[in-house]
Amino acid sequence: MADHNALPLVILAEKFASLPGIGMKSAQRLAYHVMSMDTDSVKEFAQALVDAKTKVKSCKCCQNLTEREICPICSDSERDRSVICVVEGPKDVTAFERTREYNGLYHVLHGLLSPMDGVTPDKLRIRELLARVGKGDVSEVIMATNPTVEGDATALYIANLLKPLGITVTRLAFGLPVGGILEYADEVTLFKALENRNNM
Amino acid sequence: MADHNALPLVILAEKFASLPGIGMKSAQRLAYHVMSMDTDSVKEFAQALVDAKTKVKSCKCCQNLTEREICPICSDSERDRSVICVVEGPKDVTAFERTREYNGLYHVLHGLLSPMDGVTPDKLRIRELLARVGKGDVSEVIMATNPTVEGDATALYIANLLKPLGITVTRLAFGLPVGGILEYADEVTLFKALENRNNM
Repeated sequence: MADHNALPLVILAEKFASLPGIGMKSAQRLAYHVMSMDTDSVKEFAQALVDAKTKVKSCKCCQNLTEREICPICSDSERDRSVICVVEGPKDVTAFERTREYNGLYHVLHGLLSPMDGVTPDKLRIRELLARVGKGDVSEVIMATNPTVEGDATALYIANLLKPLGITVTRLAFGLPVGGILEYADEVTLFKALENRNNM
Repeated sequence: MADHNALPLVILAEKFASLPGIGMKSAQRLAYHVMSMDTDSVKEFAQALVDAKTKVKSCKCCQNLTEREICPICSDSERDRSVICVVEGPKDVTAFERTREYNGLYHVLHGLLSPMDGVTPDKLRIRELLARVGKGDVSEVIMATNPTVEGDATALYIANLLKPLGITVTRLAFGLPVGGILEYADEVTLFKALENRNNM
């Protein structure tokens, strides 16, 4: 915004523009929108920002984001404590929970190995995973990182650390997405689907 | 977000999703992004929200948003005080200022007439415009609302109020946008461009 604009509006627009996926034009529109909200709603929004940052921490067990010491999934006695699904981030936990089919626990790495970007094993929550597995209740660890270079590398790295502990380490199945169209599948996906074919 | 997510994160995502143009998926991504910002930045963001809402008000003269009593444009003695450009919102002031060609004053209506949506003349800052013009320094009022049904209706309504005061009321020129391609122009624009043709 040009300098004839009210300074607090310019500052707010810049804050919005610093968020991922919001350009300067959208940021200005959002700043004007805030002006049209009632004062209480704006104060609640401001409080929600501070609360999310200050009240949310990592679960002591699975490292997922939670406002408690131990997250609801880890403290749920109905959950199968012998299986741990290892994921990159909290979003992936949400994705698995949406399936309503998985009843084990999770472990959130908070990233994937990427030495070029300075993400070395000590930056991820791998130590905490080894400590959990070391306690002996776990029989299977499912590596559920994305099927990308970093996801595969991270899965392989952790699998190699876990195997000496005598634990089953599995990887998510790769194949055609359900409802997908064969002719649009990329070669690698199609090859994986062929390789992992099942009896009917 | 499902209920296994940390409540403060769910609340923050809902706040983001209540903004225009931000869906639930983007809102979740933004909420996670806030978690990765440092605490001071988050607090500054929260403060910027409250500041924009509480410190910014309408200029007593032109009704544009400002943190002062009289906005920088209205208090600028270099400006031509005999011309007022009437616009729908603060965004339009920014657009005209970017041209660096207009040196008069503005008047911000904060909306366009739309009786169907309950926006009647008393909801806009028309009374304030008449008061300004009534003081006698103004010789021309430029109606610079959008060339839409509401914009045209609002311009016509205000023009009819101003003409009895013996003031020149003008409307922005309509024609081909500069750099535009003739074959892609809509019929109405092309007709206006033909109708308002100039000597070369």
